[in-house]
Amino acid sequence: MKRVINFNAGPAAIPMEVLQKAQEEMLDWNGTGMSVMEVSHRSKEYEAMHNEAQDLFRRLAGMGPEWKILFLTGGASSQFFMLPMNYLFDGRKAAYIVTGHWGKAAIKEAKHFGPFDVITTENPDGTFTRIPKQEELKIDPAAVYAHMTSNNTIFGSQWHYWPEVGKVPLVCDMSSDIFSRPFPADKFSLIYAGAQKNLGPSGVTLVAIREDFYSLAQEQAKLPTMLSYRTHAENNSLYNTPPCFSIYILNLTLKWLLNTIGGLGNMQKINLEKARILYEAIDKSEGFYRGPVEKDSRSQMNVVFRLTTPEMEESFVKEAKAAGIVGVKGHRSTGGIRFSIYNANLVENVKKATDFMDEFRRKNR
Amino acid sequence: MKRVINFNAGPAAIPMEVLQKAQEEMLDWNGTGMSVMEVSHRSKEYEAMHNEAQDLFRRLAGMGPEWKILFLTGGASSQFFMLPMNYLFDGRKAAYIVTGHWGKAAIKEAKHFGPFDVITTENPDGTFTRIPKQEELKIDPAAVYAHMTSNNTIFGSQWHYWPEVGKVPLVCDMSSDIFSRPFPADKFSLIYAGAQKNLGPSGVTLVAIREDFYSLAQEQAKLPTMLSYRTHAENNSLYNTPPCFSIYILNLTLKWLLNTIGGLGNMQKINLEKARILYEAIDKSEGFYRGPVEKDSRSQMNVVFRLTTPEMEESFVKEAKAAGIVGVKGHRSTGGIRFSIYNANLVENVKKATDFMDEFRRKNR
Repeated sequence: MKRVINFNAGPAAIPMEVLQKAQEEMLDWNGTGMSVMEVSHRSKEYEAMHNEAQDLFRRLAGMGPEWKILFLTGGASSQFFMLPMNYLFDGRKAAYIVTGHWGKAAIKEAKHFGPFDVITTENPDGTFTRIPKQEELKIDPAAVYAHMTSNNTIFGSQWHYWPEVGKVPLVCDMSSDIFSRPFPADKFSLIYAGAQKNLGPSGVTLVAIREDFYSLAQEQAKLPTMLSYRTHAENNSLYNTPPCFSIYILNLTLKWLLNTIGGLGNMQKINLEKARILYEAIDKSEGFYRGPVEKDSRSQMNVVFRLTTPEMEESFVKEAKAAGIVGVKGHRSTGGIRFSIYNANLVENVKKATDFMDEFRRKNR
Repeated sequence: MKRVINFNAGPAAIPMEVLQKAQEEMLDWNGTGMSVMEVSHRSKEYEAMHNEAQDLFRRLAGMGPEWKILFLTGGASSQFFMLPMNYLFDGRKAAYIVTGHWGKAAIKEAKHFGPFDVITTENPDGTFTRIPKQEELKIDPAAVYAHMTSNNTIFGSQWHYWPEVGKVPLVCDMSSDIFSRPFPADKFSLIYAGAQKNLGPSGVTLVAIREDFYSLAQEQAKLPTMLSYRTHAENNSLYNTPPCFSIYILNLTLKWLLNTIGGLGNMQKINLEKARILYEAIDKSEGFYRGPVEKDSRSQMNVVFRLTTPEMEESFVKEAKAAGIVGVKGHRSTGGIRFSIYNANLVENVKKATDFMDEFRRKNR
């Protein structure tokens, strides 16, 4: 067995001990004599694991029992419409702070439901290279929510302060940096994240809703049952058969984060170190590697940079692969190079990557 | 490692060789040096597996290239609303043939979208014990589709003929008996199924749409992007990150069905034998075990029966479990006993179950 160094942007690396545990338990999970995929979602064994994953999530996030933790499907892309479908009705208005590709995708869906204001940092050429300053955030106090994206996977930028939006409920798409660092849960009213970056495999989407904001959600009867947050909250995400295996890997990943890593504070230290090593390799390269993002907006999860020509970028990707380093090609919409250094990527992987970058530069400058 | 005999109604038993293959490849899938959960859904390795699963599905179903095979999420429960959302608009009307719990759930969602006629076999007490005869099926020729449920998991009934509905496009929820037997794909316009019974684990829903019916679907721009069949069809179910691991297990399960079992004809023979053994144990029991379903409507997938008292049913479940036989408790809405004998359950498991039934009857009659 040969393992590669995996900088995929999502689905992404999963901690080795999580995979080993899943492997070990594949034919007999938890003494049931079945795989976790074969167990009824109505069994006490399954439900204990499901509830434990919610508790681990709350504990890591510093969330109390006033937060409902939902396990949904359809990715963050489905939250782009579920959020306005559940909150933007009867003349209500929303606000969107758009800092990248996924924020734009979110407003496209909101258009089906109701009016909203947009604050955007989009450049005239369609790229995004910065996070707005607090003083740019003029949010209508009447907005039912203000939506933000904490990390921009494609453009490689990230919020490094938590915005003040007054009394407006703050909703955050945290898909690509959730649990990479501590965050003040109390500042938020709803947080969502596809699991396939920091939380496990694809196939499950986490939605955390605080009680006071939950009370503003649309009535269940007015929506298709599966599209109402209330359906899933009232049935502990067991209204229908949940994506059991994805939730199981999520559970193991959260345990790894809590027990092996020691929680979000430690995780942040590791992630800061990884980002520091990579950005240093870029900044010392005398323009050989060029990071387009403004320094104070740089992502600690997705380190994006360009080489001098697309051909050079192509050889970079090819040679990296030959060196056992995969997933470094930038998003198809932007080109360039991207190292996604999510939680499961180790510092030593990043060091191997920068060794490769230095070597590549020596050979090609 | 101790494996039990698993009659769960879904999530349900998965073929042993599928689980073993998944176990073996957990740390290094297909020579990638990654788990299949860690591989990019935009990689050629992932896409080849994804496309192969579609091809295997088409091949088993006898479907040509005129069928679009989608991998969605949200279970069959989400198809209950997606179908009418995509087809029941602008004054169109539909027809629903309701033969059980899930058919009723489907019409609840259709109410959000447009008018429809209902043909139902519901008994005055809310139970269902039969499939309608062909002559009962008066379908409005103007209906945009007629919806049926081929097998009723909870009440234990199943269609044993394929209904004639004239030129009306026939839509079938095949969640609980898909690929348990050959079927004439040409009779249908759309087929859907949650995977967690005969096709693999929970977390992925198969939707097959024939080209002529696909052309009648709502425009993409009028729906939230993720809720339009067109989005997923036009992007080969890769518009957003799909549930990769569930699709991988689906792929392995379809290969098992094709290569180890030898296709749907062989699968049907095995399933008929399993059902014969179980119904014989019921019918020879002199009323100790009582099957509520009319004989010609009995399901070959979910064998449902009652004992004389709820207490007796409770001991049956408990003693079965002690004998290593799990998942036999009937649905919480109906009580009773249910053996779900999906594809992955072997004839020998069913024989062990009837040995247990005979023994239990001897001790308790």
